[in-house]
Amino acid sequence: MQITVMQNVLQANEKKAAEVRALLQQKKIFMVNLISSPGSGKTTLLEKTLPLLTQKYKVAVIEGDVETDKDAQRLDKYGVPIALITTSGACHLESVSIEKAFSALDLDNLDLIFVENVGNLVCPAEFDIGEDVKVAILSTPEGDDKPMKYPLLFREATLVILNKTDLLEHVDFSLDNFYADIKKLNANLTVIETACKTGLGVDQWIKWLEEKIADKKG
Amino acid sequence: MQITVMQNVLQANEKKAAEVRALLQQKKIFMVNLISSPGSGKTTLLEKTLPLLTQKYKVAVIEGDVETDKDAQRLDKYGVPIALITTSGACHLESVSIEKAFSALDLDNLDLIFVENVGNLVCPAEFDIGEDVKVAILSTPEGDDKPMKYPLLFREATLVILNKTDLLEHVDFSLDNFYADIKKLNANLTVIETACKTGLGVDQWIKWLEEKIADKKG
Repeated sequence: MQITVMQNVLQANEKKAAEVRALLQQKKIFMVNLISSPGSGKTTLLEKTLPLLTQKYKVAVIEGDVETDKDAQRLDKYGVPIALITTSGACHLESVSIEKAFSALDLDNLDLIFVENVGNLVCPAEFDIGEDVKVAILSTPEGDDKPMKYPLLFREATLVILNKTDLLEHVDFSLDNFYADIKKLNANLTVIETACKTGLGVDQWIKWLEEKIADKKG
Repeated sequence: MQITVMQNVLQANEKKAAEVRALLQQKKIFMVNLISSPGSGKTTLLEKTLPLLTQKYKVAVIEGDVETDKDAQRLDKYGVPIALITTSGACHLESVSIEKAFSALDLDNLDLIFVENVGNLVCPAEFDIGEDVKVAILSTPEGDDKPMKYPLLFREATLVILNKTDLLEHVDFSLDNFYADIKKLNANLTVIETACKTGLGVDQWIKWLEEKIADKKG
């Protein structure tokens, strides 16, 4: 019973995700689904990214949070449209929420949408929201064993941002183990090392995004 | 439809949780449900705790993980019974899994059971597994805003362990903000500060556990 219902939920989600994806294709908007544990640095990454990208591109953010508008408030000063989805406790975003968020955005006037998913390394990876790419963020204090322990996200992602590399000397995190596990899980996965607090590596992330935006524009 | 089914799932879980709780009461075993994000330090806390407690108490661990036995392997050397539940991708433990794990443990010969839940700050807080207490672990690199952003766990918990205090000087974490938010969310919540890597604060956690075990024994 439970399994059947869950399959129905997933099927409904995928149908709606396909509609979202088709709309993004038509409008030539590149959409990034940012997924990580709470506190890995999703919002800080956006704080560093938005001032650099908005000089050149029209950007919007869809902000997913369990209850509060704290992250949306942090991003408010960057002058981009923000659609906040509070999930009332739910642990991930679904495609139907993205469709609703679109109604608050001017899709004829956008190049790029960041979706900051609910902070959770497990559930968001299961739900296609119609994005072009899933980007996983892992921070060094979480430990190098996390890709193998929570493999679905790292199998599904196109890019991993390894954040808080400024803390490497203070935490138990082996870059060798991390890269070996990533290679085993998903040989096509790109890794960019960052320290969002200081800005280190953000230039590589911007370059990666610009290439993807250009590809989408065709 | 989805909401109705979820309520059925939660009701079935609570019924089974009541049975688990009654059994623990009968056997006078104290059961701790450890909940945190991935990498906050649940397993490291147990690594520091088990050698101290097993001198005096009969302890077992129920280890919840999405796919691997990595955490169970880390704890294997401490000579306590470990029942591993791999959830096949599911994001939390439910009471029915605890009942199954009990069949692998000798409940007539235990004082204390630690349940290490799946690493996830959202979903495990929603599912009663029959525990005596939920213990939340938050590590300082995750940020002081996390209790307000993921409030359910902090409302449900009896104790919060604030871990990785050895990193306080390297991360953006205000103890003042953290304690103010904790007070707002749950005025009865006890906080113990630890640095499990160095062992700092573990003595207070042991003392807290010993009092709870004694209370349960009556």
